[in-house]
This record gives sequence, C-alpha cells and structure tokens, in this order.
Amino acid sequence: MPANESTRSINASAVTVNGRQYRWPNRPTIVICFDGCDNQYLAAASEAGVIPSIETMRENGFATTALAAMPTFTNPNNVSIVCGVPPLVHGVSGNYYIDSATGREVMMLDATPMRAPTILASFADAGARVAAITAKDKLRKALSKDLKGTAFSAEKAASCTEAENGISGVTEMVGRPAPDQYSGDLSLFVLDAGVHLLKAGRCDLMYLSLSDYIQHRYAPRAPEALEFMAEVDVRIGQLTASGAVVGVVADHGMSDMANDDGTPNVLYVGEALDAAFGAQAARVICPITDPFVRHHGALGGFVRVYINQGGPSAGEVAARLRDVPGVAMALVREEACRLFEMPADREGDVAVIAKKGVALGARSKDHDLSQLAGERLRSHGGLAEQSVPFLLSHPVELPGRENRSLRNFDIFDFALNRVEA
Amino acid sequence: MPANESTRSINASAVTVNGRQYRWPNRPTIVICFDGCDNQYLAAASEAGVIPSIETMRENGFATTALAAMPTFTNPNNVSIVCGVPPLVHGVSGNYYIDSATGREVMMLDATPMRAPTILASFADAGARVAAITAKDKLRKALSKDLKGTAFSAEKAASCTEAENGISGVTEMVGRPAPDQYSGDLSLFVLDAGVHLLKAGRCDLMYLSLSDYIQHRYAPRAPEALEFMAEVDVRIGQLTASGAVVGVVADHGMSDMANDDGTPNVLYVGEALDAAFGAQAARVICPITDPFVRHHGALGGFVRVYINQGGPSAGEVAARLRDVPGVAMALVREEACRLFEMPADREGDVAVIAKKGVALGARSKDHDLSQLAGERLRSHGGLAEQSVPFLLSHPVELPGRENRSLRNFDIFDFALNRVEA
Repeated sequence: MPANESTRSINASAVTVNGRQYRWPNRPTIVICFDGCDNQYLAAASEAGVIPSIETMRENGFATTALAAMPTFTNPNNVSIVCGVPPLVHGVSGNYYIDSATGREVMMLDATPMRAPTILASFADAGARVAAITAKDKLRKALSKDLKGTAFSAEKAASCTEAENGISGVTEMVGRPAPDQYSGDLSLFVLDAGVHLLKAGRCDLMYLSLSDYIQHRYAPRAPEALEFMAEVDVRIGQLTASGAVVGVVADHGMSDMANDDGTPNVLYVGEALDAAFGAQAARVICPITDPFVRHHGALGGFVRVYINQGGPSAGEVAARLRDVPGVAMALVREEACRLFEMPADREGDVAVIAKKGVALGARSKDHDLSQLAGERLRSHGGLAEQSVPFLLSHPVELPGRENRSLRNFDIFDFALNRVEA
Repeated sequence: MPANESTRSINASAVTVNGRQYRWPNRPTIVICFDGCDNQYLAAASEAGVIPSIETMRENGFATTALAAMPTFTNPNNVSIVCGVPPLVHGVSGNYYIDSATGREVMMLDATPMRAPTILASFADAGARVAAITAKDKLRKALSKDLKGTAFSAEKAASCTEAENGISGVTEMVGRPAPDQYSGDLSLFVLDAGVHLLKAGRCDLMYLSLSDYIQHRYAPRAPEALEFMAEVDVRIGQLTASGAVVGVVADHGMSDMANDDGTPNVLYVGEALDAAFGAQAARVICPITDPFVRHHGALGGFVRVYINQGGPSAGEVAARLRDVPGVAMALVREEACRLFEMPADREGDVAVIAKKGVALGARSKDHDLSQLAGERLRSHGGLAEQSVPFLLSHPVELPGRENRSLRNFDIFDFALNRVEA
C-alpha cells in the first residue's frame, strides 16, 4: 500500500468480489489477457527464440496451462477474468446473444448483460488506482462497468476524455496515433499505454486486454505471428522489469478450421436442421458474431439453436445434431449449462460444440466467406480452444494439490493472493 | 454429538479432509450412492408414482442435478464421493488401469491405487461411529481404507467378522442370506443392512453404495426397473423416517447403446487404430472392466489408448480418432486430465470419449457380447452419463449463487455442512 499519498483513502487490506477474497496489491499488479494466444503460439515463438521475457517468466515465475470459460469467445472470457468467476455467475456467455425478455438478437456492446461486479471496480471503490485498457472500445465499455478509474481502448485512443475515460491525451502519451483496428498494432498500443501508465506511477492494479487479429490470420510459425509475439514480448519485458507482478492468460486458443485445399471446413448447423426438421424449425445463433468479422466470418466452434414454436423438442434436435459428422457435442440447455457453468437464460435450447478443426455456422447465406480473402479459416469457440497459457512473473505459493482444474479466471487470485510477498 | 457415551472420545467439532472442512454430524447422517441411477430412472418412477419417499425428499428437502466425476464409472465416483474430491486428487480414475510403474494391466480390487484419505476414515479417527456398506466386496475394500469402523458388502455378508468388518452376524441381522451378486437384491440388502444399523443406534455417519445391475439390464420404464425403484424407495423412506439426514447421489447415469435392431452400437477403437497405424501400434484399455461384466461386456463410453514404442504420436492418434464417427472427443493425456480433473499418471496417451449412445471397445475379440444374452446394451463412462440426481432429506442453506457446478462428490459437504440445523 503506498504510504505517501495522503489524498487517497485506502479502505481495505483485502477486497471480496463474487465470493473470493483478493489481497491488496503491495506493488503494481498487472493482468494481461493475451487474446487468442493458443499454447502453440508460445511454443512456436519459444522455438524461434523470440520471446525472452516470457521465457524469463517461465524460469523465474510460474507457468502452466489453464482452462478458459466456455464458450471460448472473447467477451465471456474477458468478463470471467475481471470478475473471477464463470459465465454462470456474471451472465456473459457470448459476444452476440438472444435477449430472453424480448426474443431479439443483441450484439454485446457494453456492460448491459453483466450481472456481477468486477475485481477492478471493487478495488477502485476500496481506494486503489485501477486502469483497464482494451483493444476494442466495446470491450472497454463492458470491463469498465462501475469502475472509478482509468479505462480506454486503443481503438478510440485519440478521443479519450477525463469524463469518459479518466484520462486524456493518450495518443500523446504513447507517442503515436491510434492504430488501425485490423492490425497487430492494436494490441501493441494497449501494452505501450500500459507501460506508460505504470511508469507514471498511476496504477496499483491494471488489466490489459489485447486483440486476436494476428492469431486469426496467421498460423503459429508464420513470420507475421512470430514478429507479433516478439513485439508483445518486448512490452511484457518492460512491464516485468519494473518489478510489477505480471500475470498473463488468454481468453481462448485458436485452431485451424480449413480443409486441405484451404477452403473453410464449415458445418452449417442451420442447413442440417432445415434438412431434418424443415426450414422454419429453428434459428441458429453464432455467439462469436461481432462487428469485426473480417478475420473469422462469424464462424467458430460453438453455436446455439433456438427452436421455433411448433418445432421439434430440444432432445430431438440434440440427438439429430449429435449424429452429424463434425459435431462433438449437442446438449440441451440444462445439460450444457451444468457442464460448462453457463447461465441458462442466455443459453439456446440446444448448444452445439464442433470437433477440433470444424467451424460451425448458421446457414451459408449468413456468412460472408469472401471476408477471409482466401486465407485459411482460424477460429475458436469450442473445447479445442479451452486450454490456454497461464503465466506469472513471480513464483507462487501453491497450497498443496488443488482440488479443481485451474481456470484462466483464477489469474487475479494468483497475481494478488499467491505470489510470494 | 451423543453425550451419554462416556467410552467414546470425540476429538473434534469438525473434521478437515482433503482441504474441505466437514461439521460433526449432530444426528445420524447417511449418504447413499445410488449406482447407475440416471435421472431418467427417477423421472420414470416418479411418473409411475412408485417413489413417494423420494418425492417427499424433493418437496421437503433439496433436489437438483450434479456432475459425476469423469470417467463416469463406479470406482472413480465412489472414491470421489467418500474423499470429497475428484480423481485428480485421489488417483482412482478407472476400475481397470495400467500401472505406470510396471506397465501391467491391473484390476482395482482394493484401496491400493487410492492416495487420499476418506471422509469416513477421518471421522472415525476423530471418534465418530462410521459404517460403509457396499454391494460388492472389492469396493468395500477400497472405501474402507484406514477405516476404524464397520465395513462390509452385501456380496460377502455371510462371512463378516469383527476383525475384518467390525461386525459379524450380518445375514442374521438383516434376516436373509446374502443375495446373488447378479440381482437387484444386492442393492436392497445394502439398504436393509443400513436400516438395521441405524435402528441399532450404531452409526453417526454411514455410506451405502448400491449396484447398477438393474439399470444395466432394464430401461427406465421397464417393469423390473420400476419395481426396483419402488423397493429402493421403501428403504429410503425407512432411513428418512428416523430423522437422519439422508443424501442420495449417483456415481453415473446410464445410456442405451444399442442400434435399432437391438445389437450393441459398438465402436472398436483398437480396430480403428489397427487400420490407421498397424496392428502393433497401440493398446486400448477399457476402464469399465471389472470381474462382473455380464451386464455390459466391458463396453462403455470411455477408453484409454496406450501407444506402443515406435508408434505414432499421441497427437496423431487423437486427430485420427476424432474423425471417427461415434467419437465425441479424443484428447491427449494432458488435455484430458486438465479438462476432467483426472490424474496424469493413470491416464492413457489418448483418452477417447464416445458420443451419446455409442459404446467404445478395444477389439471385437476382447469383448464377449454373448454375455448380453440378447439384451440391449446399456452402459456409461462418457459425458452423456455425467449428470446425476443429487437429493437431500432436509432443506439446505445455499450461500448465494455458487461459482462452480455442483458435483456428486459435494454430497457429504451438503449433508454435513449445509443442512439447516
């Protein structure tokens, strides 16, 4: 706890959020959500020798693999990480969902669907200086729910205001204009901004959330991917060099979902349902859908089926889909929610999970594959993308064998509670 | 805590086992593992109106659904329940496994593979009177690990001794000879013995573990299944009527795995591997295997692949198996263990999980289907059998929304800690 700041009132030596207690940070503590950083990107970059700072974390700190929240999309996992709990508790189980009250399809654009407080806001309420920096602005709006602190996105870095973001002059601080939203620089800008805030002594607790643009476009050994990993690593090195506690997790992995000939390996679940039950039987919602579909065409490893009135039962739909090649699991709502700790009121009648390497879509007319521009489809959403890196800059105290599998949303617990003092 | 027994020393008001604290039972507390009691058996019996005591538990107590431990077999789940933790911690992840030290295939016949203490033994050490009654004797040997109390099986009820079982004269107490091990009466005998021990005031804490012989043979609406449910219900009624706290869970569900023509719907994983990689490439272990295969032919929803020296990589095997129809998931060891909290040293190189309705086997020569005697194959082991009933005779205090899905091995926590005093 900083002692020389008489203007701040520190109200707590620990903060309890969503049933978990977090110790007050005794030095700056930073969690990075390395969007789409499949273990394979770390492996390839490590082999290429381009991530020395991450190697140092592995050697001197703590490195393992953890499970992301299901479905393995960006919003559910970022919200899980900042809340420290799975979607069951905070309510966000997709980037795109059906509002059960109105029946309308809704894009998640802000914190509206969140129904749990964040670790960030709770520490800020207790007097900590907290910052959240995201790649895209809609995620900033969600993660800064009730946050009395600094929160901005690389996307909108040029237009930050004290009133809206708790900061202004971000592009001046970082020293370059806001990056293109379709670029690896979107992530690097987030990290650079974090380095500047840290150097300025402005943060006790910081959350940095990157973009998976590079991982969607490039395989782990591609020069573009290795270059991106190297650039990220430089910034991670700057953060760890300061003595801050740095935790790194990913929101999801990333899988190649293309055929040998390079075309996307897509199973259109809506068309399978049309063939089995007739064209008006059901709607298929792709919860990966977001306003930035250029790199994945709204195709991923997990979709939701909503059965129309007069349609077949959920059990019938699940049984039929289960027999379709490319489907790993088709589960009725209750089963899916129990198995994956998802909120029932945000779930479809049937949840469908692809086998590794298969992308699920609604109907071909719903997906503009030209957006892939001839590149191999790489995406996420299913169980194949649930294992993600979990790294800390410092060694951790492990209280013997854990009873439960480690989750990516345990990262704040590790960074705040388990790093050796 | 009984006050009138000066010969017993009670050392604790709570006991901590495997990282969880359990309150001392202030009245007799009984946990029943209703082997193979899929939710469908409860639903069918409820519809038929033959389980009034269970209905009363639902109305006056607590009823929900929980997740079993993976793989959904008898030994891993019974051990998880009495230890209060998943296989990751206690080490038992099959009825049949490969000893990683010797490479030999081993049938689990006693507590040898268990590496965690049980709730039962820990309470007994602290002065509680504890009893464990199982259907089969090999499970009794496992569950009574280090237990200073009463432990016997219906199978060997006729030969109980004070030295080995902490009790003798069991068949006299129950009033009938030890039942046939291929019968529903094997389970009813367990329950009857429990009722007698309870009436005799011999128990503070009791664990009753049934057999799934009936569920393997009969579908939920079959008269034989309904009759069995009714008979079990009568005994549950006798236990609850005493005022004891009674918790009921299952170790796994049960699925039909037959084709329309009644033949078993079997995928021989070993033959698929022979075709893909050659006959000496890998061994397939069916962890459902036990000495009592008459009702399932050692076929279930989960098998392990051990790759021989010079064989393909685990990644190659998993990728190939994933493409086989009938396979829901094929995971390399680390992935499987992370996802399902299983111990890595007891896992195959690749873990294979069937789609619902599909049975996995090794090679056809390894399975004697004549043991099914022409009946439809019903079995378990995969994710389709992971959802099980979770019932308590008394209302429970729920501390707000839980962060994690309920597990069947949370039943002692609920029965001891959460029932309203």
